[in-house]
Amino acid sequence: MQTFQPPRRILMGPGPSDVSPRVLAALGRPTIGHLDPVFQTLMEEIKAGLQRLFNAPDHACVPLPAPGTAGMEAAMMNLLEPGDRAVIAVNGVFGGRMVDMAGRAGATVTVVENTWGEPVDPARVEAALAEGPAKVLAFVHAETSTGVRSDAAALCALARKHGALSVVDCVTSLGGIVVDVAAWDADFVYSGTQKCLSAPPGLSPIAISPRAQAAIAARTTPVRNWLLDVNLFMAYWGGEGGRTYHHTAPINALYGLHEALVALFEEGVQAVQVRHAREHEALVAGLEALGLQMLVDPKHRLPQLNTVRVPDGIDEAQVRAHVLKEWDLEIGAGLGPLKGQVWRIGLMGASATPWHVKICLTALGEALAAQGYRR
Amino acid sequence: MQTFQPPRRILMGPGPSDVSPRVLAALGRPTIGHLDPVFQTLMEEIKAGLQRLFNAPDHACVPLPAPGTAGMEAAMMNLLEPGDRAVIAVNGVFGGRMVDMAGRAGATVTVVENTWGEPVDPARVEAALAEGPAKVLAFVHAETSTGVRSDAAALCALARKHGALSVVDCVTSLGGIVVDVAAWDADFVYSGTQKCLSAPPGLSPIAISPRAQAAIAARTTPVRNWLLDVNLFMAYWGGEGGRTYHHTAPINALYGLHEALVALFEEGVQAVQVRHAREHEALVAGLEALGLQMLVDPKHRLPQLNTVRVPDGIDEAQVRAHVLKEWDLEIGAGLGPLKGQVWRIGLMGASATPWHVKICLTALGEALAAQGYRR
Repeated sequence: MQTFQPPRRILMGPGPSDVSPRVLAALGRPTIGHLDPVFQTLMEEIKAGLQRLFNAPDHACVPLPAPGTAGMEAAMMNLLEPGDRAVIAVNGVFGGRMVDMAGRAGATVTVVENTWGEPVDPARVEAALAEGPAKVLAFVHAETSTGVRSDAAALCALARKHGALSVVDCVTSLGGIVVDVAAWDADFVYSGTQKCLSAPPGLSPIAISPRAQAAIAARTTPVRNWLLDVNLFMAYWGGEGGRTYHHTAPINALYGLHEALVALFEEGVQAVQVRHAREHEALVAGLEALGLQMLVDPKHRLPQLNTVRVPDGIDEAQVRAHVLKEWDLEIGAGLGPLKGQVWRIGLMGASATPWHVKICLTALGEALAAQGYRR
Repeated sequence: MQTFQPPRRILMGPGPSDVSPRVLAALGRPTIGHLDPVFQTLMEEIKAGLQRLFNAPDHACVPLPAPGTAGMEAAMMNLLEPGDRAVIAVNGVFGGRMVDMAGRAGATVTVVENTWGEPVDPARVEAALAEGPAKVLAFVHAETSTGVRSDAAALCALARKHGALSVVDCVTSLGGIVVDVAAWDADFVYSGTQKCLSAPPGLSPIAISPRAQAAIAARTTPVRNWLLDVNLFMAYWGGEGGRTYHHTAPINALYGLHEALVALFEEGVQAVQVRHAREHEALVAGLEALGLQMLVDPKHRLPQLNTVRVPDGIDEAQVRAHVLKEWDLEIGAGLGPLKGQVWRIGLMGASATPWHVKICLTALGEALAAQGYRR
């Protein structure tokens, strides 16, 4: 067993994305104690930074000490009690995962199935909400498995109209496209660090509305998950009132998230979104010039996650192996029913640059040509 | 919001401990994808390294992607189903936490209370096991809140004798004192990275026996926790049979753990234990020369976590503030009933050196003198 030296990689899969040198430098700074007064100022800055990035000034915003799926699990475990009804829209892998988790929380789940590669249909969601009272409406804003954006504003409005709390998966959207928790009036929003924030995986930023906090406080049964119990967790991250020991925060990972936020605000939240949109357009133009087709209709496409149809007769795994071997370039495979049907090309955070677009198109063209592909 | 530059700190509290430059360097290496073939070799090396460190060649060993308490929660959530009985020995904060978690898993808990500052009493545990069948016997090997080592071999043997699965908290023991999972024949052992491994907090190495794996496979209800569901988790970390996507591994944190393991094996597992014991003896000799008293009887003391009684008339918080301000030195306060009664001085991993002992004694002596203390 020897020191591990990672190879050079260009990360254009569904996440993690390239982590910038300044964030890597932050990760390697000396560890301090999680109860250190200086560390508490770091925590406060992260909380404020997340409130700003989510645009959630009235929400409690903290990073959970585990990957993005921890945010999903925290939402389901904290909001749902046995016997509660949850309406969950599924249009990809991650909606399906929500259904699994809500069941483990003891809820009765109404699944609203949608076609993979298309957004969640608000009419179908409303029909399910109209069937009877639901505690929660959950959906994925940006489906990483398909590259589709759903209409978070419309779906959150439906939740409000029918008295349900909204749970919104923004793992792949935060920092890449508009996430406006205040405008959506969303209740429990979560994300990850390894997508458009371009920090390493391992943390899950969340935003919880006062309404959702009140619902959690009014539970009659304990949250089934101790580590992700919002009541315990917020007492650890709570500011003025002092902090109650819960777990030991992942200090260095938080250095990384902090620096990623600093970098993002330096560039500007809107400027970052514009950059994602611009590089997406360049990539799509290049892919179409190669004769490739996108899976998703233009009006629902995520700029940061591009699903590209595998042409007939092409071995998709061999293409991925080729670009990895010859170009140190990682792109993603399809998941679930899209396995073998698509590639997933990420343009997330530090990976959303003209250089990345150019190298990806060049590598992909070469890999296709190696299989005799002609447009 | 600006780039965060941590202050200089010497970490001699209950964890995190000082992280060595080589582990910090590992944390800051470029992120690669979690599905990258090269990353899979890293995962395999970490699994093998943990098997070696736990001495658990037949156990499934992986690091969970969350702090040490995730290991505790994984043990309780995976092994216990509603209606199961758990016998849990409590002799400090962390035993109490186990009780909370077992309750959330739906178990009926028999609590075996022990005096804080003393080890778990095997006779009392056996009496509780003899009362009726128990699925689990859980205890803390090294109580971080008191600095006490309990007899893991004897307690695991009682579990076996009475047909219970043993859950052993080795958060503070692993890498500091003997942890011999094979000799104990223990079933679910977990640890953290921020104690004697001297990596940053954020990961929880676990070891699961074939017997415990079979018990989890035989569950009739789903594990309540999705992220920590061993069945899903092991499929992601599984080797030859391929990997099933679960979460996104915290890549850079795993670089850090890997390097911490490399460093530990370079020094030698036994040599590391000897170093902890030696520095502990030096520290205790120095503390006693200052006229201070240890909380714990010598035969149950943890070398890596030293609980020192606060002398009468001394403001303990002021002492901690003094050594932090004047020496950049962090030591820990008492927890629970020991709050205000003791300091907790860690000699963990990279913080277990003669230099640390000397600076700690010097700083402590100065802080006490500043309050007019005379031995």
